[in-house]
Amino acid sequence: MSYSISLSKLLESIGAKEGSKLSVESRGKTYIGTLMPHHDFSGGDVVVLKLSSGYNIGVRIFEDSAIKVLEQPRPYEKKEVAAEFREGLPTITIIGTGGTISSNADRRGTGALHPALPVSELVDSVPGLRESANISAKTLFSVFSENISTEHWQELAEAVANEINGGADAVIILHGTDTMGYTAAALSFMLAGVPKPVVLVGAQRSPDRPASDAPSNITAAVRFCVKGGTAGVFVVMHNTLEDDSFAVHIGTRVRKMHTSRRDAFKSINAAPIAFLDEKGTITFTKEGRGVTSEKASAKTKMERSTILLQYYPGMDPSLFEGMMMKSKGIVISGSGLGHVNEGMISLIKKACGNGSVVVVTSQCFSGRTNLNVYSTGRDMLSAGAVAVLDMLPETAYVKLMWALANSESPEEAKRLMTTSLADEMGDRREVDV
Amino acid sequence: MSYSISLSKLLESIGAKEGSKLSVESRGKTYIGTLMPHHDFSGGDVVVLKLSSGYNIGVRIFEDSAIKVLEQPRPYEKKEVAAEFREGLPTITIIGTGGTISSNADRRGTGALHPALPVSELVDSVPGLRESANISAKTLFSVFSENISTEHWQELAEAVANEINGGADAVIILHGTDTMGYTAAALSFMLAGVPKPVVLVGAQRSPDRPASDAPSNITAAVRFCVKGGTAGVFVVMHNTLEDDSFAVHIGTRVRKMHTSRRDAFKSINAAPIAFLDEKGTITFTKEGRGVTSEKASAKTKMERSTILLQYYPGMDPSLFEGMMMKSKGIVISGSGLGHVNEGMISLIKKACGNGSVVVVTSQCFSGRTNLNVYSTGRDMLSAGAVAVLDMLPETAYVKLMWALANSESPEEAKRLMTTSLADEMGDRREVDV
Repeated sequence: MSYSISLSKLLESIGAKEGSKLSVESRGKTYIGTLMPHHDFSGGDVVVLKLSSGYNIGVRIFEDSAIKVLEQPRPYEKKEVAAEFREGLPTITIIGTGGTISSNADRRGTGALHPALPVSELVDSVPGLRESANISAKTLFSVFSENISTEHWQELAEAVANEINGGADAVIILHGTDTMGYTAAALSFMLAGVPKPVVLVGAQRSPDRPASDAPSNITAAVRFCVKGGTAGVFVVMHNTLEDDSFAVHIGTRVRKMHTSRRDAFKSINAAPIAFLDEKGTITFTKEGRGVTSEKASAKTKMERSTILLQYYPGMDPSLFEGMMMKSKGIVISGSGLGHVNEGMISLIKKACGNGSVVVVTSQCFSGRTNLNVYSTGRDMLSAGAVAVLDMLPETAYVKLMWALANSESPEEAKRLMTTSLADEMGDRREVDV
Repeated sequence: MSYSISLSKLLESIGAKEGSKLSVESRGKTYIGTLMPHHDFSGGDVVVLKLSSGYNIGVRIFEDSAIKVLEQPRPYEKKEVAAEFREGLPTITIIGTGGTISSNADRRGTGALHPALPVSELVDSVPGLRESANISAKTLFSVFSENISTEHWQELAEAVANEINGGADAVIILHGTDTMGYTAAALSFMLAGVPKPVVLVGAQRSPDRPASDAPSNITAAVRFCVKGGTAGVFVVMHNTLEDDSFAVHIGTRVRKMHTSRRDAFKSINAAPIAFLDEKGTITFTKEGRGVTSEKASAKTKMERSTILLQYYPGMDPSLFEGMMMKSKGIVISGSGLGHVNEGMISLIKKACGNGSVVVVTSQCFSGRTNLNVYSTGRDMLSAGAVAVLDMLPETAYVKLMWALANSESPEEAKRLMTTSLADEMGDRREVDV
């Protein structure tokens, strides 16, 4: 909880933990409230309490202060209940990683959402889910997706491969929506050619709210896994504001395009591979890759120094030089067809000369980059930049981390970047210019 | 042209300039082609020629090489033809800044597009334009918009104010589409409260191409200026792929969302203020600010150290620290409601402690930021970050440059950032959460 060492010891000695209801007496005043995680920005000797009013206060603890535990929080249920195995039904592993879809408000009276709902509890709460598949539920981690990082992707890819090689017919991953698109892209490259469906699913409203989209999104994901017969990494989320249409997005082509709506996830530069209606009928927009009984393998190495930068007018190369010279991979979301200003072109040249790979995408998102139309683009190519057609900047960032770590040279990484490995870019002839 | 000093002198002495057709004899071979701008990445003693095949070659010049001018390029027409003044018609100044809308391919046989078409020539080529208004045409600069920078915005804002104070009823700015949204935002703040319509217009296809959208976009812009009666900074572009609908976007709410389509410009988090059909009928979606006879004033100071960063998983604070500590203003397009990871929160705290202003927007673009829903957001607020509701990241970047330069303290700049000055953010009660 990041309290100071002495205060942590004191809290521990009386059995106080996050969520405990405490009485704190300090300098003649008594405060009653729920113990909150310590704030990095409060002093280490300040106890943070949520009062019954809903407000948080910090109470400074002195040598003569008194702290008592009035009530302990309800403990989390950690065990995952295994349901009875039913012959003839497919086997699906649902992996929890945290996020709103695994969140419960107020479990500890703290008011904030915590990504700590056991996956099995969530599965049990969705009517009909256990009837359609043998579902085993596992919690891999419990973090909001803004804190998902490269190590989480690696652990997740290993876990998915293990589940598939252990007999799972599909793996569903419950994930926070904030960075679900990035994780979907990462798994798409790490698990390229995966023989079963791997579906990420999230929610824009937590499951304890009546209007939650968690149950309907999970149901659609399970239905796609059971009846879709299509291998690959996908994101399943609401296609509309109602519970009547769900989109199955290709993992490398999806972006969160609204902060809060249920239909926030949109496929960019490629249609969703399929839609499901409220009865579970699947309509494919194109033929996918069929499931096979091959083994899955996870190639999880990633180059961590890779960066993603958005170009903007007035971008000052002198501010970005230090960072770019330290990065082996640089993805730039340029303006329009992929452009940057003259100063940035010189810096791209310098970075490429330094052995970095510079990949150009467009901050427009829709449409394709093209560095052959204007002199700016030609200068960028001469400087050593590589354009990646209609690939999303976020997908290019994740792919470049992967390509650099899984190749022997910058040249090989560039070849990987300009070759479609997981439906992340169109064919040059196919794309509308 | 950036050739070496000795080579520049040689070229100058024989009257060779960009676009000249040359015969170059070097080491026993003779090359005939059009002189191209020198490439920063070629040696300074290499002449770049475009051959009749369309390919460019670099020819190294030695002491015994011979260069002859075979033909000079057709000179640009620089003068702007003033048309006869007609009583009763409004006066519109059209300012050229470059971009595809002012570009002609092949004028010098170089193949690339050059933003050098005289504005008056373009105006004369659009049927009916001179009949609807007294149009005076001026070229302010001729650059592709990826090279538009803070100084261009400043010069442009001054020019617009001068034109209005000199009697213009409206100002239309021809601009490259790549960064037109940023310029529209910059002019919106620099010219806040401007008493006349100021309309930016671009084209996705150059005017020398049969399918150019330049004439129809300019016509729609002129019609809106003549008949709209609405003051403010706007962007007028195709609303659909056909020539039958044009959108009038609010300057702070518009983003280029496709690399090449005619309908690339979209209003985000606010409807276009009006639409025009092919006959020029204007349909308003809401009431705008009426034109007045007040004077315009340009507040053009900008804080140049401001930066715009997109958050992504794995973003390494140690790579960004140097830059952030040098910047007085930092706009972050966070994930979802505006989130970043824990490491970046610590860096935000450090930057704010250093006197910087950190402004949070969302990389989802649609929807509003909200740092009060999750603990991550609350930690960001505690660290000193300011969220700006539904403001576009690009608009927030431009506004922060302006707010920092036009306020006495970081606190005053923060107050400006959280107050809507040019329709750039919604009311907290209005916005759908």
